[in-house]
Amino acid sequence: MRVRGQDLRATWWTDEGIAYIDQRRLPHALEVGTARTVAEAAHAIADMAVRGAPAIGVFAAYALALAAKRGEAIDEARVRLLATRPTAVNLRAGLDAVARAAPDPAAMLAAARAYDAAEVAAAEAIGTHGLALVRRGARVLTHCNAGWLAVQDWGTALAPVYKAARAGLDPFVWVSETRPRLQGSRLTAWELAEEGVRHALVADGGAADLMRRGEVDLVLTGADRIAANGDVANKIGTYAKACAARVHGVPFYVAAPRTTIDRTVASGADIPIEQRPADEMLYVEGVTDSGETARVRVVPPGASAINPGFDITPAEFVAGIVTEVGIVPATAAGIADALGRGPVRSPGGR
Amino acid sequence: MRVRGQDLRATWWTDEGIAYIDQRRLPHALEVGTARTVAEAAHAIADMAVRGAPAIGVFAAYALALAAKRGEAIDEARVRLLATRPTAVNLRAGLDAVARAAPDPAAMLAAARAYDAAEVAAAEAIGTHGLALVRRGARVLTHCNAGWLAVQDWGTALAPVYKAARAGLDPFVWVSETRPRLQGSRLTAWELAEEGVRHALVADGGAADLMRRGEVDLVLTGADRIAANGDVANKIGTYAKACAARVHGVPFYVAAPRTTIDRTVASGADIPIEQRPADEMLYVEGVTDSGETARVRVVPPGASAINPGFDITPAEFVAGIVTEVGIVPATAAGIADALGRGPVRSPGGR
Repeated sequence: MRVRGQDLRATWWTDEGIAYIDQRRLPHALEVGTARTVAEAAHAIADMAVRGAPAIGVFAAYALALAAKRGEAIDEARVRLLATRPTAVNLRAGLDAVARAAPDPAAMLAAARAYDAAEVAAAEAIGTHGLALVRRGARVLTHCNAGWLAVQDWGTALAPVYKAARAGLDPFVWVSETRPRLQGSRLTAWELAEEGVRHALVADGGAADLMRRGEVDLVLTGADRIAANGDVANKIGTYAKACAARVHGVPFYVAAPRTTIDRTVASGADIPIEQRPADEMLYVEGVTDSGETARVRVVPPGASAINPGFDITPAEFVAGIVTEVGIVPATAAGIADALGRGPVRSPGGR
Repeated sequence: MRVRGQDLRATWWTDEGIAYIDQRRLPHALEVGTARTVAEAAHAIADMAVRGAPAIGVFAAYALALAAKRGEAIDEARVRLLATRPTAVNLRAGLDAVARAAPDPAAMLAAARAYDAAEVAAAEAIGTHGLALVRRGARVLTHCNAGWLAVQDWGTALAPVYKAARAGLDPFVWVSETRPRLQGSRLTAWELAEEGVRHALVADGGAADLMRRGEVDLVLTGADRIAANGDVANKIGTYAKACAARVHGVPFYVAAPRTTIDRTVASGADIPIEQRPADEMLYVEGVTDSGETARVRVVPPGASAINPGFDITPAEFVAGIVTEVGIVPATAAGIADALGRGPVRSPGGR
């Protein structure tokens, strides 16, 4: 996507290592980091400098190619990278795609580049298929960040919104702020502002009342893993939106490339849920009035918090899954159908 | 309630003015402010230094007595105080109780003291009645702060929890952090820690998944206004919990004194919803690692946010309303029944 006149992606290969937009620093600063070793790459994922299920898949793919180039042990690198974020299955998909080309470093880099290109093409195709859900002036509620920062380009949940905006359909996005890391406030609001899409932030707890007031036409989120039966793991707070959407008959769609589908897990009960540090609940980071980055503690000393990174939305709550091969039902048959279709190329220029 | 060995209330009358615990400073500091004029009292409410529907009712009652004592125009004072927070009807109840004793300053102060004592007795009676809902080891989810800070003593939603704790029933409280002002993290967690009640913070969006996992036995919240048909206005985010509770068959109860019931509004549609400044969504206040109070901006410049202070939970979502005269159905008949019963005295010592 274009940011301040530059064409940017979430991560890209360079001679020095893997470059990435440091998503911890957004929206206050647009900084590019570089992972020069597998250890640095693993840290960037674990610390969420690189985040978003499809984007960490691409980044991990490049990281495995980096391991080969540097002569680091490939199997060890794979295990280390895989351990950084247990929920998003794209991480494994990216590593698998590159591991198949091992041990030749050039072949592995080519595999990583191909995986990257396929994810970008998939994201754009998600946008094209999802466009059918977005009528003129539609008010779309989204959660967390499933935009281009999460997916190299276009995004998953936001791809149909960007396509709609470019088609002149003037969509409006309710951005759920997404505690504790505030990806909605920090990343999605920033992306939408850069792209000139109308939007407003809403507290996570406020989405249900918006639906009750009839101010939401559609809920559209990304996913970190989709089970074989259509159950969806996504950022904590997603399921609360699904409950409210069910109560109000608002359609709840999930958008994800097929690399997010894990046919090896039967249902959401089998998806490992990452438990993140409690500090993410106890402290908030931002910039002070004088422009310095600071973190403030918001709770009393000794407070305890649970901080699961994700929740499970059962398939029955999901109206459909927008994939790069079309919108399929959130059922075992729908998932099998999506997986059975052939590869996708970019559906067209921008 | 006792805090660090002191018996404390949220607000109390002094010769210098109306003393109050400054709830903006908690949990980082326990500071007592004093409103010496009606203007200072109005500011303390509007800025949420004094907050919680029943507590602002008591505070406003004392503020009107203060106006009389100082020779300020009583009608003007009443209008000014009433305008500070449009949703919580207790504000009006407190002012009405004292206005009836106008213009004699001594009579008005006596009326304010009586209103205060009645609210404390009501809160304790809510605890006694609500205790029937809390079985041994119950896991209670609450939202915002409906503890003693919100209600002078005992609280509304937390009163049954405190009664259960003192009865040795070892309750556990899931504390929804409550964006944007984080009353759950800052106030409820602090209260529960001071009282030695087991608890853990959970992000607002995380409550639904807790219910799906079977980890919530009961939802218990306060209220800012209850309509004649049983619809409930309470802190934004309450209704999201009600939706999730409905989906999972978890009982959702509201606890409030009868001063929170407004028989002049037919339904929730007639309850005015306060729109708070967007800055509450854009900035977060806390203490830095070096112990200084600071606010940090968490969103990009130019971001817009909606910030309704409250939402409406329709009566059909409410399993019952815990009042000082018993638990009544959230129906017109239940509300009329509660209002028709006589006054309450403190149900017993502590």
